[in-house]
Amino acid sequence: MTLSTNWGVIATWRMAWEGVAEAANMLQESGDASSAAVLAVTCVEDYPYYKSVGYGGLPNEQGVVELDAAFMDGSTLAIGAVASIRDIANPILVAQALSRERFNSFMVGEGAQTWAFAHGFEHKNMLTDRAHQHYLKRKRETLDRGLSPYTGHDTVGVITLDQNQQMCVATSTSGLFMKRPGRVGDSPVSGSGFYADSQIGAATATGLGEDLMKGCISYEIVSRMGRGMSPQQAAESAVYDLESQLIARFGRAGDLSVVCMNNHGEYGAATTIDNFSFSVATPAQAPAVFLTTREGKHTLIRPADQAWLDAYLERITAEVIV
Amino acid sequence: MTLSTNWGVIATWRMAWEGVAEAANMLQESGDASSAAVLAVTCVEDYPYYKSVGYGGLPNEQGVVELDAAFMDGSTLAIGAVASIRDIANPILVAQALSRERFNSFMVGEGAQTWAFAHGFEHKNMLTDRAHQHYLKRKRETLDRGLSPYTGHDTVGVITLDQNQQMCVATSTSGLFMKRPGRVGDSPVSGSGFYADSQIGAATATGLGEDLMKGCISYEIVSRMGRGMSPQQAAESAVYDLESQLIARFGRAGDLSVVCMNNHGEYGAATTIDNFSFSVATPAQAPAVFLTTREGKHTLIRPADQAWLDAYLERITAEVIV
Repeated sequence: MTLSTNWGVIATWRMAWEGVAEAANMLQESGDASSAAVLAVTCVEDYPYYKSVGYGGLPNEQGVVELDAAFMDGSTLAIGAVASIRDIANPILVAQALSRERFNSFMVGEGAQTWAFAHGFEHKNMLTDRAHQHYLKRKRETLDRGLSPYTGHDTVGVITLDQNQQMCVATSTSGLFMKRPGRVGDSPVSGSGFYADSQIGAATATGLGEDLMKGCISYEIVSRMGRGMSPQQAAESAVYDLESQLIARFGRAGDLSVVCMNNHGEYGAATTIDNFSFSVATPAQAPAVFLTTREGKHTLIRPADQAWLDAYLERITAEVIV
Repeated sequence: MTLSTNWGVIATWRMAWEGVAEAANMLQESGDASSAAVLAVTCVEDYPYYKSVGYGGLPNEQGVVELDAAFMDGSTLAIGAVASIRDIANPILVAQALSRERFNSFMVGEGAQTWAFAHGFEHKNMLTDRAHQHYLKRKRETLDRGLSPYTGHDTVGVITLDQNQQMCVATSTSGLFMKRPGRVGDSPVSGSGFYADSQIGAATATGLGEDLMKGCISYEIVSRMGRGMSPQQAAESAVYDLESQLIARFGRAGDLSVVCMNNHGEYGAATTIDNFSFSVATPAQAPAVFLTTREGKHTLIRPADQAWLDAYLERITAEVIV
């Protein structure tokens, strides 16, 4: 095995920043890609003010938090995933454990929950008062008036590359806010929400899962990197090709955003929305948040400035006015 | 739209033959790909002697039948899927209905069931006495002795091409026999169990879902056809490449079998097992069953002879000796 001096971690959204910083420390000290990816995701899951992942995640239309998560080891191609799981503190830990199973490695609903409790995973009521307030507000503004309630759907997806050139990807989300009970998006779905191949690279997606699954976007990005594209080329071309196909053939395209990294630690990001943020760290880049904007078929990337970062923290902790 | 004189239907396993014959009639009389694919799958779901799909499907380790199904329209890329759903007569009809939804188009467990009942889909106890006998026998032979119970996992996957060059794919399965409650395989997972793009072709898989998902096999086959491979080349190269990767990186490979068709009605099949069967019909080929055998990195295809067909019927209707 060729030892590389490279390591890297990239993740969707600003909310991953603290986790990315912790993963970066671990990778710098020769930690493995698997532990680092899972550590980063658990940080996001545990933080109550991130309202689309784990504890504090937004509930479904009945006010119940249902979570999806997945883990993929890019070296063995092992995958573990859970969907529509309730009352579990860290869905990513269950997904990681399932990736070690030969059979039954993607589990959903009550069955997944029963397995997780039987294997000692922590029980936790994942609905915070704050998330409940968000729910009541949204319900009053939409469902109660017969309007479509669907809006936010911010998945955390973390890609790690360790110093042995092993790559992993991990995802976690509470899914589409106000979703129907039992709805599953792209996050636990191999090739759509995530894909990792240590011989090439990895990709992970966030946005409207229903549309991301129509193009197996993460698998497609890894394939394009495998055929010689840079991560940025692969991300941009795959996202805008899928968007064009969806508009031409399905009549519309939901939000599509991705990050990816190859096994040299080069990374890319692409989005169809304004101000999709991502968090990244490499030996050459201290943990930082970047903002992206689309311009035609390209995604422009700039560092988030202090004003944006301050406004973000203020926004996520602001009182919810019901 | 260019009218083509071509139509075609191909499906995994002998069990699809009756459904393929009905779909062929429909396609020959200018029926659409969507209706034909769903018709073929409902035939398999309804037939009590096919023990891995729909009514009469084999139960999970607790003796409960849990079903997965998916539908994809290769023209719009719309997808609908259900997983881990109980007591629904025709999961494929629910999947097809969900493919028309903008949001919440992949649903699992109780939530999926509640939605299906609310939308008028037929309630049915899917466990037959015969499947229950199979379960008791298997349980006694394996679980009760502390042995691994996992064996059969035969998904029906049907690809249709209509005279307007529209393609669809539909899958349905009771999943891995003796699976844990809540286990989901590749069949409802976009890109793994199925993928269809009317501009290129479609593919569908059967075998060990846990391994098929590691390679997004159906999406990969469609991609290869899109890059110029014949269906047979695409199927063989993708299946044996994935098998090699799994053995080298994961240490072993489960059963992997696929069928595919391009939008000219040319088809292919590949397998890692002996006697994987498929059913096919085109204007040039009356509905027939073929058997496949691997030879190195190739899959040999031969018509099933009458002796094989007779033995099949005898086997599936034979008394279950508990």
